[in-house]
Amino acid sequence: MIELVLGGARSGKSRYAESVVCRQPGPWIYVATGRAWDEEMRARIARHQLERGAGWLTVEEPVALSQVLRDVGEKPVLVDCLTLWLSNLLLEEHNIPEATHTLLEVLTARQGLTVLVGNEVGLGIVPDNALARRFRDEAGWLHQKIAAVADRVVLTVAGFPLVAKPAGGKGTV
Amino acid sequence: MIELVLGGARSGKSRYAESVVCRQPGPWIYVATGRAWDEEMRARIARHQLERGAGWLTVEEPVALSQVLRDVGEKPVLVDCLTLWLSNLLLEEHNIPEATHTLLEVLTARQGLTVLVGNEVGLGIVPDNALARRFRDEAGWLHQKIAAVADRVVLTVAGFPLVAKPAGGKGTV
Amino acid sequence: MIELVLGGARSGKSRYAESVVCRQPGPWIYVATGRAWDEEMRARIARHQLERGAGWLTVEEPVALSQVLRDVGEKPVLVDCLTLWLSNLLLEEHNIPEATHTLLEVLTARQGLTVLVGNEVGLGIVPDNALARRFRDEAGWLHQKIAAVADRVVLTVAGFPLVAKPAGGKGTV
Repeated sequence: MIELVLGGARSGKSRYAESVVCRQPGPWIYVATGRAWDEEMRARIARHQLERGAGWLTVEEPVALSQVLRDVGEKPVLVDCLTLWLSNLLLEEHNIPEATHTLLEVLTARQGLTVLVGNEVGLGIVPDNALARRFRDEAGWLHQKIAAVADRVVLTVAGFPLVAKPAGGKGTV
Repeated sequence: MIELVLGGARSGKSRYAESVVCRQPGPWIYVATGRAWDEEMRARIARHQLERGAGWLTVEEPVALSQVLRDVGEKPVLVDCLTLWLSNLLLEEHNIPEATHTLLEVLTARQGLTVLVGNEVGLGIVPDNALARRFRDEAGWLHQKIAAVADRVVLTVAGFPLVAKPAGGKGTV
Repeated sequence: MIELVLGGARSGKSRYAESVVCRQPGPWIYVATGRAWDEEMRARIARHQLERGAGWLTVEEPVALSQVLRDVGEKPVLVDCLTLWLSNLLLEEHNIPEATHTLLEVLTARQGLTVLVGNEVGLGIVPDNALARRFRDEAGWLHQKIAAVADRVVLTVAGFPLVAKPAGGKGTV
């Protein structure tokens, strides 16, 4: 079972994704893809970890996401988030099509629940900045590819989900 | 009854919100939170007032929103909009957590209908500008808090609502 | 039958729109509104044409959209996209209200299916740039006007549609 949780900044997507994972028996794996560059980021990660509470095992992995998903077996996993993972790939000049291809293979091979969070960034005016445009394109393509293999896709709005692809269905046609 | 109407720029959110309020018997209270800085803004406010037509009582209040909601009793109210209210709080350095807390108390205590309009601004690329990022965060948090106590939450798209939290339900889970 | 397909950048809106058109018997008319300014754009248009495959007749028309819709009779049509058409009108200083009015007349007079694709650009922070703000306003108004006469309006998210105005209904009220 794969669920893709997209949403804007501060739309409650991580909290919603956590609630989806927590419906299954734990322990739950939290994969944090953000790089802990500085003290502020470290403090923020620690605070989030505390807020999630007991039952969660946190794995920090900015790039080798597919490897982590292989390593954790079939426990329920929350990937938070695709956007930071993609940023890391882009900034460190990894091969994005290859990384995406491997991720899709690992995702579809898993039996356990995988919930993936991503920032929807394509609903504003075209950015001036070429890197921002590139990132926006890559993020959109990544989300589409994951959505195609996902069992459920939602867009969170103020903490509540709009269901674009319902579980057990193939989306509205 | 509390309804939160979110939407992008020119997505028809105010018109939709008016239609929700007008299903109840009037008179209806329109709370305009925009500051009438200049002649253009004054003219625009006057034009909107005219377009809404009879049955509406307009109150202009850029900051003391909770006080207005207390003062108007149980008449149906449209707050247009949270985004301008929050901008005013931010620019004039009011205490946002405190103002939000009071607003939530007043909202949940009201028996009459309150429809609140807000701009969803979090679905584009991360803004370069620090104030814009701060505003985006504050707006998202405010919307989430109001959505949590709201009976219904919608996102308008080209004038039509996508229902994120349906009335009588607790949202899709 | 008129369907409006809105979506963010790389949200799969064109592909979704094609799938809607292809449910009807062909041949299908593809109206490309982008100006082929340079070699890169020419190559891109040619590639897209190839990807759509047999059964599609491509018409390139950056401005005279209403005329094309009149000329093609009742064959199923995909307009890709309103955003480029509007950009062309704006940059070449055409009369937008007049062009919109004519488009609505032609759309509502057609018996055949018309699917129109548009970029939703209003869900980010207010742009600094005055032309971008103007464009955002015009795009929102255009989408609302078409949505009002459309039989169905969707917002695509990662390739899947959220239905704002369902066919046979007048939208959620």
